[in-house]
Amino acid sequence: MDEQVGAILAGLDLWAEWPSETQRRIVGAALDSFAERGFHGTSLKHIAQGSGLSTAALYVHFGSKEELLFALSRRGHAMALEVVRAAAGEPDPRRAATLLVRAFTEWQAQYRTLARLVQFGGAALTPEHGADAADLRRGIGRGVQELIERGVAAGVFTVRDPRGAATAVLSLGVDVARWYGPGLRWNPGELGVLYSDLVDRMLSGGT
Amino acid sequence: MDEQVGAILAGLDLWAEWPSETQRRIVGAALDSFAERGFHGTSLKHIAQGSGLSTAALYVHFGSKEELLFALSRRGHAMALEVVRAAAGEPDPRRAATLLVRAFTEWQAQYRTLARLVQFGGAALTPEHGADAADLRRGIGRGVQELIERGVAAGVFTVRDPRGAATAVLSLGVDVARWYGPGLRWNPGELGVLYSDLVDRMLSGGT
Repeated sequence: MDEQVGAILAGLDLWAEWPSETQRRIVGAALDSFAERGFHGTSLKHIAQGSGLSTAALYVHFGSKEELLFALSRRGHAMALEVVRAAAGEPDPRRAATLLVRAFTEWQAQYRTLARLVQFGGAALTPEHGADAADLRRGIGRGVQELIERGVAAGVFTVRDPRGAATAVLSLGVDVARWYGPGLRWNPGELGVLYSDLVDRMLSGGT
Repeated sequence: MDEQVGAILAGLDLWAEWPSETQRRIVGAALDSFAERGFHGTSLKHIAQGSGLSTAALYVHFGSKEELLFALSRRGHAMALEVVRAAAGEPDPRRAATLLVRAFTEWQAQYRTLARLVQFGGAALTPEHGADAADLRRGIGRGVQELIERGVAAGVFTVRDPRGAATAVLSLGVDVARWYGPGLRWNPGELGVLYSDLVDRMLSGGT
């Protein structure tokens, strides 16, 4: 594995926002139940059972299942933003884009249960929480666009529409969570290499 | 609009499998309700109400809501396959890939309600119906891969892994249904042009 990609992925911590062991159990049980039964098919009782707590004990930490969905959504978006920022820290824009696509793809494949919830479960958020999630997504999009613009300014990327290219690059990575599964042709790292090569051709025109 | 793209899209008929007006009303109501309430949140009563029929009258045509989901899923996949086949009929592989990406992107943006159900609602299908849908998806993937292989054989495409490239090309198009909405920066036709240019760079290395 590429050392810089490994360092970016090693810096991500799903549990960073939940210091308490009890909260982690609740959040983990919510993620499992949303993935298995869907948001609407999940009750707080399912989540309490999955975390080995009473519903009353669960309420001490989270007021509703939507609050849990939002907590997971916020955390997933925050991790995606961390990947973009860490990759953008690399001075060479072409190398930065490769790091970004490798780490983002690998992360989407590895954390696909969370990523699916984040990407496809947003409709169940309250309007306010949905707007917060949309803000986070705009920040991620801007980060990718700025990286591409940096490459265009440096003369290594030749795309005419950096925002359009950023949309395509992120979309490719996000959709991995939909279709990727165990037993496929590529492990997450191999998929990251395949995709970063394709994106490099897309951005730099293979020069 | 590009005439060949227009011809491909004009050849698609969502209703082709349902000659009866009553069936069309039921299928349309099912699509609306699945999109609004989710599959699990939809009852046959919702669909009957939406189509102005009694539940008993609905049962004459469809035995369960899963059967309706499968009918919609099969139809959506069939339309995607028609796009791939129609584009592949163009002899020049580079032009064929451009037609494919333009028509597929535009269709995903335009029919995003159906496309979302087809792409993201598959988990609610019975195992048998899920296997049928997976067969259709493999056929679509093979069609795209063969088109890319034809371009590699002709020396116009330079990708090393046509199957990997086919996965990326389809994934880009499919994900449009997730993020596209009214009021965005591109209308469906403009997005098709943007994406076909990016894919052409990806496949041919901008040569």
